Amino acid sequence: MARIVMKFGGTSVADLDRIRNVANRVKREVEAGHEVAVVVSAMSGVTNQLVKWCTDLSPLHDAREYDTVVATGEQVTTGLLAIALQTIGVDARSWQGWQVPIRTDAAHGKARIESIDGTLLIERMGQGQVPIIAGFQGVEPGRNRIATLGRGGSDLSAVAIAAAVRADRCDIYTDVDGIYTTDPRIVPRARKLAAVAYEEMLELASVGAKVLQTRSVELAMKQKVRVQVLSSFEDKPGSLVVDEDEIVEQPLVTGVAYSRDEAKVTLRRVPDKPGIAATVFGPLADANVNVDMIVQNLGSDGTTDMTFTVGKTDLPRAKEVLEKARAEIGWEAILADPEVTKISIVGIGMRSHAGVAAMMFKTLAEKGINIQVISTSEIKTSVLVGVEYTELAVRALHTAYGLDGPG
Amino acid sequence: MARIVMKFGGTSVADLDRIRNVANRVKREVEAGHEVAVVVSAMSGVTNQLVKWCTDLSPLHDAREYDTVVATGEQVTTGLLAIALQTIGVDARSWQGWQVPIRTDAAHGKARIESIDGTLLIERMGQGQVPIIAGFQGVEPGRNRIATLGRGGSDLSAVAIAAAVRADRCDIYTDVDGIYTTDPRIVPRARKLAAVAYEEMLELASVGAKVLQTRSVELAMKQKVRVQVLSSFEDKPGSLVVDEDEIVEQPLVTGVAYSRDEAKVTLRRVPDKPGIAATVFGPLADANVNVDMIVQNLGSDGTTDMTFTVGKTDLPRAKEVLEKARAEIGWEAILADPEVTKISIVGIGMRSHAGVAAMMFKTLAEKGINIQVISTSEIKTSVLVGVEYTELAVRALHTAYGLDGPG
Repeated sequence: MARIVMKFGGTSVADLDRIRNVANRVKREVEAGHEVAVVVSAMSGVTNQLVKWCTDLSPLHDAREYDTVVATGEQVTTGLLAIALQTIGVDARSWQGWQVPIRTDAAHGKARIESIDGTLLIERMGQGQVPIIAGFQGVEPGRNRIATLGRGGSDLSAVAIAAAVRADRCDIYTDVDGIYTTDPRIVPRARKLAAVAYEEMLELASVGAKVLQTRSVELAMKQKVRVQVLSSFEDKPGSLVVDEDEIVEQPLVTGVAYSRDEAKVTLRRVPDKPGIAATVFGPLADANVNVDMIVQNLGSDGTTDMTFTVGKTDLPRAKEVLEKARAEIGWEAILADPEVTKISIVGIGMRSHAGVAAMMFKTLAEKGINIQVISTSEIKTSVLVGVEYTELAVRALHTAYGLDGPG
Repeated sequence: MARIVMKFGGTSVADLDRIRNVANRVKREVEAGHEVAVVVSAMSGVTNQLVKWCTDLSPLHDAREYDTVVATGEQVTTGLLAIALQTIGVDARSWQGWQVPIRTDAAHGKARIESIDGTLLIERMGQGQVPIIAGFQGVEPGRNRIATLGRGGSDLSAVAIAAAVRADRCDIYTDVDGIYTTDPRIVPRARKLAAVAYEEMLELASVGAKVLQTRSVELAMKQKVRVQVLSSFEDKPGSLVVDEDEIVEQPLVTGVAYSRDEAKVTLRRVPDKPGIAATVFGPLADANVNVDMIVQNLGSDGTTDMTFTVGKTDLPRAKEVLEKARAEIGWEAILADPEVTKISIVGIGMRSHAGVAAMMFKTLAEKGINIQVISTSEIKTSVLVGVEYTELAVRALHTAYGLDGPG
């Protein structure tokens, strides 16, 4: 017998038929002898309608009232799923954030969970009842008001509740059936991973594999919650996100990720003097421009070329900031190139093995792909290449690191 | 300066434009120097959708989960109206039943309000903030769960909150602009009443003038809450429902009401012996059939004819019950006639004036209308007539009692 938290997103509960389908899945786990708690999102489309009403009334609406309105989406799903479960003979009860309680800070609209009292939930599960908990929300104890965690917050709710009830596993049901070695749309022989380490998942998530919200992976890692990502529409095992110690066979590289969301900026002939990096990146940070990869090439004439990447949508703002700071920085020219892709290989095996990055550079060189920027971390190596090489590069690396599944 | 509770029903908050319109009305009262609290229903149509989801999942759904789902309708309106008010510069905040708190019993789906703590609401009003309170709901303290008051319960919420905050007046905004001497669709010269006594309103409501829910009038009478019924679409005074002492000029008859919802049942030649009424009406009560007017004509041969009215929808059940009890009752024949209308004259003036009922009988006789059943109470006289005489009778009585307004 295990204690399991099951989380179902908006598309999994989009209508009554899907809610009945979810109820049947929950029933199966209960009949297998498990203690089960369920976390649900709003029926898909509902949250958008509620948000639109608030925004139409006032673009600068009170976040506390926004939370009051938007949190009703999840509330409806909890009640409907409880009814659906009772109808098929499973004892169930809905729980709103204020009833559990799930306590948050006062940052309405993007609140952080401060504590969850799991006592009542554990008690009910022990009595064979399935708690259905509204995801994405809690209560701010100071003013006794509903606070939402922001978009995607239901994953975070599920992981936090799994930690609070000391669950053996947190199953995140979604519209993909797991985590893949790379994007199957680019590499048809991409394989579903049986298990991924938390750190790997964080790197994969941040470079574009939008399966799990980053904050929920961080929380799972911190609280040691074993997470499984699986399909709510198909009946097969998904991918586990767990501590690296649980992963028996660690490949050198776990996955190949890519992101077309970045743009390259080069500042030509910047004076090479101490503090110059701060002069460049300080104003960008002040303007909320997130800078990712950074390289600096030393010239022989006392100047340097600085290259870095920013989010594509931030590019106009970044250029504006740099233009304004020209006198201070002393650059000679700005070159901006949005036509780039960041390609990353990720794997905790890289920590203990040399030559993993070298194979990346060799593979790309063999395909004639020019590397514009390189950046590395302990378990990731990323390169920036021309956007037209995306598919070629991803496929070549996928094959080179032995990730291809049976064709 | 007065303290006012304003209540807006579903059609008054049906969309964002109407919510903005409500906000403007509230603002006007605030600017007039009043302390204002607002009670809102769900946007019209929303509750029906939520109810349908519950019923589609299971006709015998858990009433506690039903309440969890359905109560979201009002919650959404509270948040949206708070935003709309803030946008036009009025300080406002939404309140759910569990936040006030509005405590109810555990009869989910048709709960009764047990107590309302008005402290926080009074405090906020004193600070110039407008509390926007979700109607139709409260919290059942035993299990800390949301409980709804049943259909139309928002009026009840408004009156109860007005009592809890000791409001000078409870304004019920609705899609009619007040209480009329009779149905203006039948009598174009019907007049809007400036004031009606609680008792009159109860009699008018129970015979078909569906402006205010009966339970809310009873509560207003008990708690001495002055209620005003007025239009949310037009800007003119409505009708006050108040203690009779407040009504300076009391007419003999305040209004003429009618109801086509009843059917007449006659039991022929029932043995005239003690306890026979109990034998007839006991089984009907057991079957939840509501009996209204009752008359009994003594025959000369030791039998009696009993005539009474039941709700039209209850007629088949009533007949079934009486057939089953035939041996016990000993009737000779059952005659059922759904083609009847109950017409009532209502007025507290009837208490102190003789001859008011007599004028009713005379007026109907002059028009050749046969009276089938008569029943009287302290402030009401009702007659049952053939349904085809409805308009003729109502018009004649309206004129006879001097209720016609300028043509």
